[in-house]
Amino acid sequence: MITLPRKILERKLRSFLEEDIGEGDITTALIVPQGTVIEVEIRAKETGIVAGIEEALVLLRSLGLQAEPKVADGAKVKSQTVVLRIVGDARTILTAERTILNILSRMSGIASMTRRIVDKVKNSGYKTRVACTRKVAPGLLYFDKKAVLVGGGDVHRLRLDDMVLIKDNHLAIAGNVTRAVKEAKNKGSFSKKIEIEVSTPEEALKAAEANVDIIMLDNFSPAHIKKTLELLEKNGLRGRVLIEASGGINEGNVLKFASTGVDILSLGAITQSAKALDMSLEVVKVRKAKREK
Amino acid sequence: MITLPRKILERKLRSFLEEDIGEGDITTALIVPQGTVIEVEIRAKETGIVAGIEEALVLLRSLGLQAEPKVADGAKVKSQTVVLRIVGDARTILTAERTILNILSRMSGIASMTRRIVDKVKNSGYKTRVACTRKVAPGLLYFDKKAVLVGGGDVHRLRLDDMVLIKDNHLAIAGNVTRAVKEAKNKGSFSKKIEIEVSTPEEALKAAEANVDIIMLDNFSPAHIKKTLELLEKNGLRGRVLIEASGGINEGNVLKFASTGVDILSLGAITQSAKALDMSLEVVKVRKAKREK
Amino acid sequence: MITLPRKILERKLRSFLEEDIGEGDITTALIVPQGTVIEVEIRAKETGIVAGIEEALVLLRSLGLQAEPKVADGAKVKSQTVVLRIVGDARTILTAERTILNILSRMSGIASMTRRIVDKVKNSGYKTRVACTRKVAPGLLYFDKKAVLVGGGDVHRLRLDDMVLIKDNHLAIAGNVTRAVKEAKNKGSFSKKIEIEVSTPEEALKAAEANVDIIMLDNFSPAHIKKTLELLEKNGLRGRVLIEASGGINEGNVLKFASTGVDILSLGAITQSAKALDMSLEVVKVRKAKREK
Amino acid sequence: MITLPRKILERKLRSFLEEDIGEGDITTALIVPQGTVIEVEIRAKETGIVAGIEEALVLLRSLGLQAEPKVADGAKVKSQTVVLRIVGDARTILTAERTILNILSRMSGIASMTRRIVDKVKNSGYKTRVACTRKVAPGLLYFDKKAVLVGGGDVHRLRLDDMVLIKDNHLAIAGNVTRAVKEAKNKGSFSKKIEIEVSTPEEALKAAEANVDIIMLDNFSPAHIKKTLELLEKNGLRGRVLIEASGGINEGNVLKFASTGVDILSLGAITQSAKALDMSLEVVKVRKAKREK
Amino acid sequence: MITLPRKILERKLRSFLEEDIGEGDITTALIVPQGTVIEVEIRAKETGIVAGIEEALVLLRSLGLQAEPKVADGAKVKSQTVVLRIVGDARTILTAERTILNILSRMSGIASMTRRIVDKVKNSGYKTRVACTRKVAPGLLYFDKKAVLVGGGDVHRLRLDDMVLIKDNHLAIAGNVTRAVKEAKNKGSFSKKIEIEVSTPEEALKAAEANVDIIMLDNFSPAHIKKTLELLEKNGLRGRVLIEASGGINEGNVLKFASTGVDILSLGAITQSAKALDMSLEVVKVRKAKREK
Amino acid sequence: MITLPRKILERKLRSFLEEDIGEGDITTALIVPQGTVIEVEIRAKETGIVAGIEEALVLLRSLGLQAEPKVADGAKVKSQTVVLRIVGDARTILTAERTILNILSRMSGIASMTRRIVDKVKNSGYKTRVACTRKVAPGLLYFDKKAVLVGGGDVHRLRLDDMVLIKDNHLAIAGNVTRAVKEAKNKGSFSKKIEIEVSTPEEALKAAEANVDIIMLDNFSPAHIKKTLELLEKNGLRGRVLIEASGGINEGNVLKFASTGVDILSLGAITQSAKALDMSLEVVKVRKAKREK
Repeated sequence: MITLPRKILERKLRSFLEEDIGEGDITTALIVPQGTVIEVEIRAKETGIVAGIEEALVLLRSLGLQAEPKVADGAKVKSQTVVLRIVGDARTILTAERTILNILSRMSGIASMTRRIVDKVKNSGYKTRVACTRKVAPGLLYFDKKAVLVGGGDVHRLRLDDMVLIKDNHLAIAGNVTRAVKEAKNKGSFSKKIEIEVSTPEEALKAAEANVDIIMLDNFSPAHIKKTLELLEKNGLRGRVLIEASGGINEGNVLKFASTGVDILSLGAITQSAKALDMSLEVVKVRKAKREK
Repeated sequence: MITLPRKILERKLRSFLEEDIGEGDITTALIVPQGTVIEVEIRAKETGIVAGIEEALVLLRSLGLQAEPKVADGAKVKSQTVVLRIVGDARTILTAERTILNILSRMSGIASMTRRIVDKVKNSGYKTRVACTRKVAPGLLYFDKKAVLVGGGDVHRLRLDDMVLIKDNHLAIAGNVTRAVKEAKNKGSFSKKIEIEVSTPEEALKAAEANVDIIMLDNFSPAHIKKTLELLEKNGLRGRVLIEASGGINEGNVLKFASTGVDILSLGAITQSAKALDMSLEVVKVRKAKREK
Repeated sequence: MITLPRKILERKLRSFLEEDIGEGDITTALIVPQGTVIEVEIRAKETGIVAGIEEALVLLRSLGLQAEPKVADGAKVKSQTVVLRIVGDARTILTAERTILNILSRMSGIASMTRRIVDKVKNSGYKTRVACTRKVAPGLLYFDKKAVLVGGGDVHRLRLDDMVLIKDNHLAIAGNVTRAVKEAKNKGSFSKKIEIEVSTPEEALKAAEANVDIIMLDNFSPAHIKKTLELLEKNGLRGRVLIEASGGINEGNVLKFASTGVDILSLGAITQSAKALDMSLEVVKVRKAKREK
Repeated sequence: MITLPRKILERKLRSFLEEDIGEGDITTALIVPQGTVIEVEIRAKETGIVAGIEEALVLLRSLGLQAEPKVADGAKVKSQTVVLRIVGDARTILTAERTILNILSRMSGIASMTRRIVDKVKNSGYKTRVACTRKVAPGLLYFDKKAVLVGGGDVHRLRLDDMVLIKDNHLAIAGNVTRAVKEAKNKGSFSKKIEIEVSTPEEALKAAEANVDIIMLDNFSPAHIKKTLELLEKNGLRGRVLIEASGGINEGNVLKFASTGVDILSLGAITQSAKALDMSLEVVKVRKAKREK
Repeated sequence: MITLPRKILERKLRSFLEEDIGEGDITTALIVPQGTVIEVEIRAKETGIVAGIEEALVLLRSLGLQAEPKVADGAKVKSQTVVLRIVGDARTILTAERTILNILSRMSGIASMTRRIVDKVKNSGYKTRVACTRKVAPGLLYFDKKAVLVGGGDVHRLRLDDMVLIKDNHLAIAGNVTRAVKEAKNKGSFSKKIEIEVSTPEEALKAAEANVDIIMLDNFSPAHIKKTLELLEKNGLRGRVLIEASGGINEGNVLKFASTGVDILSLGAITQSAKALDMSLEVVKVRKAKREK
Repeated sequence: MITLPRKILERKLRSFLEEDIGEGDITTALIVPQGTVIEVEIRAKETGIVAGIEEALVLLRSLGLQAEPKVADGAKVKSQTVVLRIVGDARTILTAERTILNILSRMSGIASMTRRIVDKVKNSGYKTRVACTRKVAPGLLYFDKKAVLVGGGDVHRLRLDDMVLIKDNHLAIAGNVTRAVKEAKNKGSFSKKIEIEVSTPEEALKAAEANVDIIMLDNFSPAHIKKTLELLEKNGLRGRVLIEASGGINEGNVLKFASTGVDILSLGAITQSAKALDMSLEVVKVRKAKREK
């Protein structure tokens, strides 16, 4: 779902590279003879899910390098799995090495954490979706959301303009749930879903009666969630809304939340606190070559 | 050391906000009446070191909001510590909320992890510097390095153009340590330091003899590091170079590494895998007001 | 709903001005003495709805000019109504004149056409929403959609990423309606609505059975639309979906379409073929003044 | 005359596409299988002059698509005329569809209106040039002016820096025509033409005596224009200046204006109020294919 | 003539500063205590004409500094003349020092060389204009042309789109002078002047007969120029065209060229080879102060 | 050392071209038939060292032109030496002509001046390095520094963030040399060298004792420099620091400075006041050709 034409992606990726280079890779310029061609491999150094292959390929190829993916985005790798093989101008490869690894490691870290949680839920037989939030690294919206997708998660709202999400701070200003939802339905575009964050089962009921599309149960315990779902069920409204739980969910307790029957579980940690997946680039062959101009 | 004039920082920060907004914060526009003025607080939700205050202030003020820091960058906070108080147009504040929190949380997460390690080393009486690497989030060079600085760490090389750092892949192409260093010293600018990565104590000795400024011991065990330092000492070269150890160092084993007497310990995890510091923004007062045009 | 913080808007608006200026307003520099202060009025030259006041104010004020709106966005004006009064440096005002007028004229033209159609529908007692499409001038998404909003229309989908809209060309590839909707529901994010374009009442029925959020009747005549609505009603599905009609709708025939009971009417012409609203800027007072440095 | 190297144009065109895509074409990503190759045609849906072919080709080819023009810029088309044939990756084509159509429709709309007026004048045997003004859509200077050129019109001044054009507001500050022209001739660059807007035949005479290059008769009736031309003729100055009439000219009355013998007629409506030329993109063949990486 | 609204200029100037800063002025951050306020003076170190004051002020003020010009653009200064006095945050001033000086020195160098030549011509009683060419430093069009203007020179053509200038390479393709001029007059916009470069007096005559606006005598000796002017005079065409001489003109021989009665002399060296005017920034007062946030 | 991946360089180079083109090369569009193919040569018009070949090739090739270098960057050329041969679309070549020449001429001018000085020093048997400063043309950091490198000079500090350089203005605030250096060593990153500017031999001694990496003797006469070096030698500190002399050094007196045994001589004039190397582009063959789309 998150995917950009190569030429648009190129511009973003190149800006990352530019930031890392400054005026030039002075080490490579001093040490590596012009015209040297090398073959290198990018390998995983630990177990996880790879993401960022598509992005790495776009950047590498835009630099005139041959790059061949050895696994696809979403594949499970372990230590020493070769992820990419690259052939081309040695100076260019070494100059881009860190930027490529930073992209792959961050995205793979996010995808790996997402997949672990998604699999946990799925393997226990629950249909609950695992979603991320807008807690991405500043400027990395595309990459963080894409990594969640590769990991099997739901990207949730992308930006402030693609869904109405009425949160506690909005309610602190706008007053009650019913009026806020009514306002949004009347004045908002028919093209956007409306979600509202509630803090009690009763508010959830009001929200469902006001006909919102999604209700977010903010910091509800599993027991609290269950109670809310029953209340909605009893009032014949459960089928009409999606229920999202958010706050305090982590890899350890996710199954307790999933077991409540909630539709969506969202976790800020997926994009904000995932450990990078360790990877490295190693030269496997060095050959001198006529530099192609 | 890492600090930019406000107007330059503004442009970077605003691009983060733009990415999160798209064409508008549709929820706020629908729910929050024009002209509403609110007072809000940003609070830490857990213990850590705050970073990003300076950056948050630049962004908030550029949006016409009054913002008052309650703690300074580098301060230790715990759950419920108020970090910033903001007064101004409700729509603007709520639109910027997530971007501001994402900046503060990421930077504070990095600063917190850095400080924990720095303090551990310092409190055990070691003089070893703790440094980050170039393993930053793509596009976030300034912010990640600045957070390390706030945490008390050393920013190390900023980009590929501000220090010569000859790594294993360069040596795989350029041949031996001695020749590579000689090349760099002859052709490089006098204004840059030269560092070389070595994989044996013997290579370290050669590097020191070649008169490099810094030697990086790559993936050396503490015992191995100690042996290397002794070899250099024996040859009267220890005082002439800085020794950096890198690879496999973490919060758990950092003291073992520090105890070797190495000058610098560098950890990619500080910028790549630090957990974000949880923070939230809460409305503390709502007042209607004539909107200032 | 479409509204950006002033500082973000400034950048977009200034790029329009830069394009018109090049290296300088050579006429003004030659003819208008430095330090001259003038007072000018922007007046409508014909009847219509004004839009772009907010945008004009942001640009004018960012240039250090005092600008006072005489009517608000959405107000009805007629020939000679004063829309804005501006006081400040004569050179700056004359340099910005054409860019300001171009923004106001285009946006007001769109708002005027939108309002005429919206009023026509509303005054005849129909609840049908009037929406625009993605047929905006390239690069002017924000401004064209905002103008529609000011005119009372619905902005519809903003971009390719904020709603799933399965069109004829997608179906030409993906095969049938049912499968396409199922695919979108399974793999898409819960946060986005799903709309599908159909070309027969039977397809509309299938789409409703597949539980889409919105069905677009493409190029249906009013009779055809009515027939479709009845078919859905008969199958108990009318209440579950929003129905949008698109294609061949214009100011002349809009009431015939509205009378069918369809929920939304969308017209590309609103943003693509609205006549600009004629406006002009006139100097009303000239005074010499010390130029403030 | 208005024509940019492909690589410069690419950047502008791509920014239009980026705005429309956001983080991805979610519909296409969900519905269209990766690797699908399609053949599509862009067809006119009504009679007019095509413009924007060159621009569409640059964008399409930069996206890796094969695109073959079926008519050239400036060609007359009618409903169902195939304008472009495109072959390539289905996802890319469908993602770019609306942006391509928006460029073609806007530019063709402007070219069509221009051509109708130009032909009307030419077919009646008049030599009068038909020109546009600076009333372009903000940000679309290149595209709007280029479309006028394709339609056979004169692009007039491009920006505030490529001709001196002294207008009523300048005169309101600078005093009389003679002094203003003298100032411009003395201080301005020899490389720029000087035009002045006048509101009476007497002012026109003074302007011609002051040796301007072009005189703009602002809101003159045809009779008034004729009288002015005779006055200049009588004073032996007609041959020395170009005369432009502006204000109140439209498709209906253009011949009356042309019949006066004026040199140039300029119309803001050409770029500001031309109806877009309706076009559509249709899939004509679908084939599965190995996706070329 | 070349002058931009402050906000547009700010963006260009700030990009220069950004390039020089990178991630921060590490020296200043280490050495200068936060909150220090200083007063500094920028002084000329040699005799010349100052340019760039307006630009320096825009940049300094955008950085929150108080800046007071001590001389105006175009003023003659000698060694030790104070050009600007600046008060404000010491870190900001020292960070911007080099960029400000680079702007002032380059622009003043160009203005100084221009003025020397202009004065030489004027003081000898010639009316000949001294113009620069398009031989500016890449990216510095605005600044180099503005400096020429400050020095009293003519900016000539700004870009490839603001005058038709048919040069030898065009003629090598297009054939003869007469046909080329005719083509340009028929198809070009009435709003642009037409100049043609010729290499013999006979070609100049043909160009004048073809009614061009300006004729450039390329690499003509003064004698050759005189002969050409006489030929035009004899044919009654001298009054109809401006004559520009270009090639081989310098400070030493400029009067010989001016004495021919040619209208314009253009010199690439003014913008391409002017010596920078030496300037320096000196701290005149240091005071501790509460840093204004 | 200063060298960027082609794709990053392209963006910078293209922005120079865009500035020069505006909306199009109107002369070429009017005079040169579409589809014309030409072969041209760029020739030096005077003796010097060529720089900018690599940059010109990147720009030319990105425009779809075939370009073959006839000499390499750093080669010595004389009048009429062919530097580049270009084949391709005539319109594109003529449109890019001036931008290409401006890049080559400026860079070659800088390289030529650098080489003259470097050779003078080297040919007299001195080991002194010749370095430039940060006195580059605003925005041209990469190009000016690269040209110095091509000429055989040292690029010195690139930006404010890649070396600590404590200058007179810092000392005016921070007090004495010893404290300033200590501060920098304690708080600065181990990865950066520390240089300090001194104004007396005694300060130089203090700086060396404080263990800085480089000492800059500001405006010292050769005699003064010698005295300083002797003082350091006497104190056994000469071997520990690099000594740079700056101020008042030029082509005429450089050998006197070099003869002192100083390590580095830096000259602002190399980048700020080098005369451009004259070059021209000439059409050598014209052929009609089918335009490749």
